[in-house]
Amino acid sequence: MHLFYTPDIAAESYFLNEEETKHANRVLRLSVGEKVNLIDGEGGFYEAEIISISKRQAELKVLHKILNYGKRNNRLHIAVAPTKNIDRFEWFLEKATEIGIDEITPILCARSERKEIKVERLNKIITSAVKQSLQSYHPKLNPLISFRKLVSSSDNGQKFIAHCMDDNKISLKECLQTKSECLILVGPEGDFTSEELRLASDYNFKGITLGNSRLRTETAALEACFEVNFLNR
Amino acid sequence: MHLFYTPDIAAESYFLNEEETKHANRVLRLSVGEKVNLIDGEGGFYEAEIISISKRQAELKVLHKILNYGKRNNRLHIAVAPTKNIDRFEWFLEKATEIGIDEITPILCARSERKEIKVERLNKIITSAVKQSLQSYHPKLNPLISFRKLVSSSDNGQKFIAHCMDDNKISLKECLQTKSECLILVGPEGDFTSEELRLASDYNFKGITLGNSRLRTETAALEACFEVNFLNR
Repeated sequence: MHLFYTPDIAAESYFLNEEETKHANRVLRLSVGEKVNLIDGEGGFYEAEIISISKRQAELKVLHKILNYGKRNNRLHIAVAPTKNIDRFEWFLEKATEIGIDEITPILCARSERKEIKVERLNKIITSAVKQSLQSYHPKLNPLISFRKLVSSSDNGQKFIAHCMDDNKISLKECLQTKSECLILVGPEGDFTSEELRLASDYNFKGITLGNSRLRTETAALEACFEVNFLNR
Repeated sequence: MHLFYTPDIAAESYFLNEEETKHANRVLRLSVGEKVNLIDGEGGFYEAEIISISKRQAELKVLHKILNYGKRNNRLHIAVAPTKNIDRFEWFLEKATEIGIDEITPILCARSERKEIKVERLNKIITSAVKQSLQSYHPKLNPLISFRKLVSSSDNGQKFIAHCMDDNKISLKECLQTKSECLILVGPEGDFTSEELRLASDYNFKGITLGNSRLRTETAALEACFEVNFLNR
């Protein structure tokens, strides 16, 4: 069934916006009486029926609503330095959304080559992956913030930092408390600096390893996402 | 240290080909006496020294050789239908190489939209990922073959087929025998047909699930790769 992302749904009836209506009309060729699914990005999954459709607007009537649809038993937040080549970061966003993630914070590190991102564009990629993979929760993408600010302001749940230095690192398999909340930091190409690692340690982030291969930034972030989801299954 | 992929290395000295020499000269600006690393793609990891370098050719002398460098304790073969958009398949090849894979067979299924691939181009992507992630084994990429041919000719190790149908599927966590050999099949956009699933079952492929999300072809293949590596760690 066709799926629409309707974060602003609030009542029994809903009007698709112009862009979605165009899609419904021209691409999907939907007509009155047809059923569609809606997701609100916060766990609401709806079955709805088209009760009117014009060039600019389609009205839907909600027939059935499920709350907390596909809710996971854990919460995952990954803070990662966006890659120099933004395509790689976009791939990460798409894949992490498919596999399962709740929050993403792009961070600016000492060795970051990319110093800005376009949140709106990146959010569209996430929304598209949400729809494609039938996720009922829309991951939250935060604006870019400095490493220091992120590290010093994170209070909830378990905190990990994935890095490449030889150190007393353990794997998530050994230390992740499942069915719980966690934040994992992944550094830029060239890794975190020793100073950043010390700062993270001061704020009680545990150093973790993601295996023996040398992974690219976006692969490391995705590996972390895979591991947390796998361990929570 | 700089790394060169030298699959044809056979003796104590080695000549870089013209392309690699150009790279050594112009990009890396290497000169006589400098040390480099070589990998042969079959587990050989070498330390070598440049003993002469011209515009067209560089001669290296092997100083030290390690066999079976970074050898994993398992063998993973994934057979997957290449995606319609080849970028997605290329992304899978890169990421799987980084994370750890031994053999990839592109398969032609009933619902495959892509019916041909350029093996040489795809191999270059693998080689580049091998170098970037310091893998000492070069994954083997086979030519495209039909689903039927692959399924009926695979004899060694454990055999799995990942698909989306409701069925008696189990997860790799429950059934993978680690430190061993396995082959996993992943279907095209639109999944395998029931007939293909029956054929696979006739040849003793076990149906597996890769979690509750609806994953794209390349994400499913990477998830399988991740799971096998994780379980073997």
